[in-house]
Amino acid sequence: MADYREMWRSLGIDLESHDNLLDILGKLYGDIYLSQNKRPEGMEYLDFVVSEVHGYRIKELLDAQKVGSKVFGTFCVFVPEELIWAADGICVGLCAGAEIGKGDAEKVLPRSICPLIKSFMGFKLAHLCPYTELCDLIIGETTCDGKKKAFEIFSEFKSTYVMETPQMKREKDYDLWRNEVYKLKEKVEEVTGKEITPERLKSAIKLINDRRRALKRLNKLRREIPVPISGRDALLINQISFYDDPKRFTEKVNLLCDELEKRIERKEGVVSDKTVRVLLAGSPMALPNWKLPGVIESSGAVIVDEESCIGERNIRAMVDESGETMEELIDALVDRYMQIDCACFTPNNERIEHIIQLAKDFKVDGVIHYTLQFCDPYLVESYKVEKALEKEGIPVLRIETDYSMEDVEQLKTRIEAFVEVLR
Amino acid sequence: MADYREMWRSLGIDLESHDNLLDILGKLYGDIYLSQNKRPEGMEYLDFVVSEVHGYRIKELLDAQKVGSKVFGTFCVFVPEELIWAADGICVGLCAGAEIGKGDAEKVLPRSICPLIKSFMGFKLAHLCPYTELCDLIIGETTCDGKKKAFEIFSEFKSTYVMETPQMKREKDYDLWRNEVYKLKEKVEEVTGKEITPERLKSAIKLINDRRRALKRLNKLRREIPVPISGRDALLINQISFYDDPKRFTEKVNLLCDELEKRIERKEGVVSDKTVRVLLAGSPMALPNWKLPGVIESSGAVIVDEESCIGERNIRAMVDESGETMEELIDALVDRYMQIDCACFTPNNERIEHIIQLAKDFKVDGVIHYTLQFCDPYLVESYKVEKALEKEGIPVLRIETDYSMEDVEQLKTRIEAFVEVLR
Repeated sequence: MADYREMWRSLGIDLESHDNLLDILGKLYGDIYLSQNKRPEGMEYLDFVVSEVHGYRIKELLDAQKVGSKVFGTFCVFVPEELIWAADGICVGLCAGAEIGKGDAEKVLPRSICPLIKSFMGFKLAHLCPYTELCDLIIGETTCDGKKKAFEIFSEFKSTYVMETPQMKREKDYDLWRNEVYKLKEKVEEVTGKEITPERLKSAIKLINDRRRALKRLNKLRREIPVPISGRDALLINQISFYDDPKRFTEKVNLLCDELEKRIERKEGVVSDKTVRVLLAGSPMALPNWKLPGVIESSGAVIVDEESCIGERNIRAMVDESGETMEELIDALVDRYMQIDCACFTPNNERIEHIIQLAKDFKVDGVIHYTLQFCDPYLVESYKVEKALEKEGIPVLRIETDYSMEDVEQLKTRIEAFVEVLR
Repeated sequence: MADYREMWRSLGIDLESHDNLLDILGKLYGDIYLSQNKRPEGMEYLDFVVSEVHGYRIKELLDAQKVGSKVFGTFCVFVPEELIWAADGICVGLCAGAEIGKGDAEKVLPRSICPLIKSFMGFKLAHLCPYTELCDLIIGETTCDGKKKAFEIFSEFKSTYVMETPQMKREKDYDLWRNEVYKLKEKVEEVTGKEITPERLKSAIKLINDRRRALKRLNKLRREIPVPISGRDALLINQISFYDDPKRFTEKVNLLCDELEKRIERKEGVVSDKTVRVLLAGSPMALPNWKLPGVIESSGAVIVDEESCIGERNIRAMVDESGETMEELIDALVDRYMQIDCACFTPNNERIEHIIQLAKDFKVDGVIHYTLQFCDPYLVESYKVEKALEKEGIPVLRIETDYSMEDVEQLKTRIEAFVEVLR
């Protein structure tokens, strides 16, 4: 591995703590990922990206900045990243999936706030996320109370721009959101100094749609019995989609899909065709939040789909590519992003319909509904999800957890019992 | 006291539990309220209203329904109640200030949700709030994640209409909110079967402004040293303003103010002029949430103002009364309600400015910032409030608590220590 210490130092990273972090992550990755049997060969690329996630990719971004590109960091699938790519910018998801800088974060945030929010604040205050440090602008949103209010504090430490996301899907909400999309376009043009022309936006829409198409293709292959890839690996691919160069990433995912298709032809699964199939639904699992998938897949089940922002919610809807004028293209973006079935909306019945449809399409034996601790939107909604699934005769287990490892044994007990029932 | 058992039974109230509730409330009221010294005579009316809050007032509302009035229940100062009064409707705040039906509520809601939300669900599921039961319609809003999502469940048990409140104060937010106000007007007209004419709306605006004027007058008198009324009593008056008939209530508050003005002339305080003066800021304190005020005022301090929805936030802004057309009157409502400095907005710097101004106007020695447990908007905002107050040299104590009595001793210790420092 190249020596990136000088690069990290120049970004203000706390080198000693960062070494510890990489050590822990390396061990975790070994335990949860490298220990798997029958992994597809195409996962080698993902292994490489993970091993270089704070190294090679950071260097690429810094090199791009040197020749004039701007890097934008986001925490939510609601940010229409097409606008960023259209201005020769780069969009990256930010570190928020590990219990990092908790002590620092709790100096400015309540203890009873969702671990994802505590994590992004912690990564910043502890100087441990090179992505956050190098970003030219962070784009936040008002999807939940915790993030909405935490960005007010976060902005004291890092340049932050907040989009207002609507809470319903009425006509006026479309107006509000359209206005926000136009305002983001202006902001991105201001930061990058580049004009977003219809041609460039159309090409960016194609770029990100292609990535969605590749991830959709991957997910479709997971409907097969036996399933050709583990849920852990599929989650990782979705997580990496937020960091990697979209063109390269799309190519690599398509190559992996070619390999998986051959597996399917040979009826070769990553696990036996008798393995209990589970849909994992709920709160986002940001990199490197692999705890629950690790527990589930070491309990005799396989995750065949993720109904989350790091999964179906991020790839389901496509942007209409037929527009030519700026107005048509922006309208297409507005329509696409308003299809997101986030629990921030009320009512949000389409999410429940989607979960039931996914459970059927992926031939699952049961659903595990996962919520981050203190995540009110998904926590409250899980009651209606459970009721609807029970009505359909689909077994469901509701799990609420954070990023600590303290409850691993308890989770294992509950999940093993659930899997036993499904067998 | 009249026998209301038949009335309660007809509303589906769980009589046995309700008897217990009234017993507990009576004792609590005795301890916290009736034990006070030098209470103004005008508080007799409030004592009567509290003693009859599930009795006489309920009978009044049922009698009004018998002659065609409709009753609307709300949980938030964001609902423009003027529209309700303009349609000969009656608006009441709903029971949400006590730990009631917790077990029932936790069957449908997460345990880690704000006690106010758990309380309104608990009151409904345990059949203990005659107001909720008799309401023709509940009007909810999307001011926080917890309420927004809980109304989806609540609506399974009671007819509920939800208004979308904006999260910023940009032009498009005014458009969204204006649309919501017009939609509420239609809804109220539909439920009441009465047309809201400009004349009726103008008169309702005057009615509710008059109530705000009386409460403002009361608060202004509390700027005096020595303060002529306790914070507990002032809070109670604000709490009762959500239940009582507005015209009668306004008259009674003005009579009380007449009495307080005489006290002030005589330089007669409810406590000595040496008593530590505290501003209580933060989350709403719905009836009968008197725990913290009780602790503070038994710890050698007096609360001289409430910066909360049950206080300044509800009475600060007035509706412009000069409009004549429906459009002018609705615009006046929109402008007034958009001035609310709720933590649901981002940014919400005007709230911090208001707190500092109140601290100065009311000559306080310190601020106690109160948040309901798990109330992310106010919890996260309290960090910025504290920082701003410290910069102004105003001592501040942050308290987070729920409706249980378990932490009373701990609160007492912390508050006594804080008051000691302020002395």
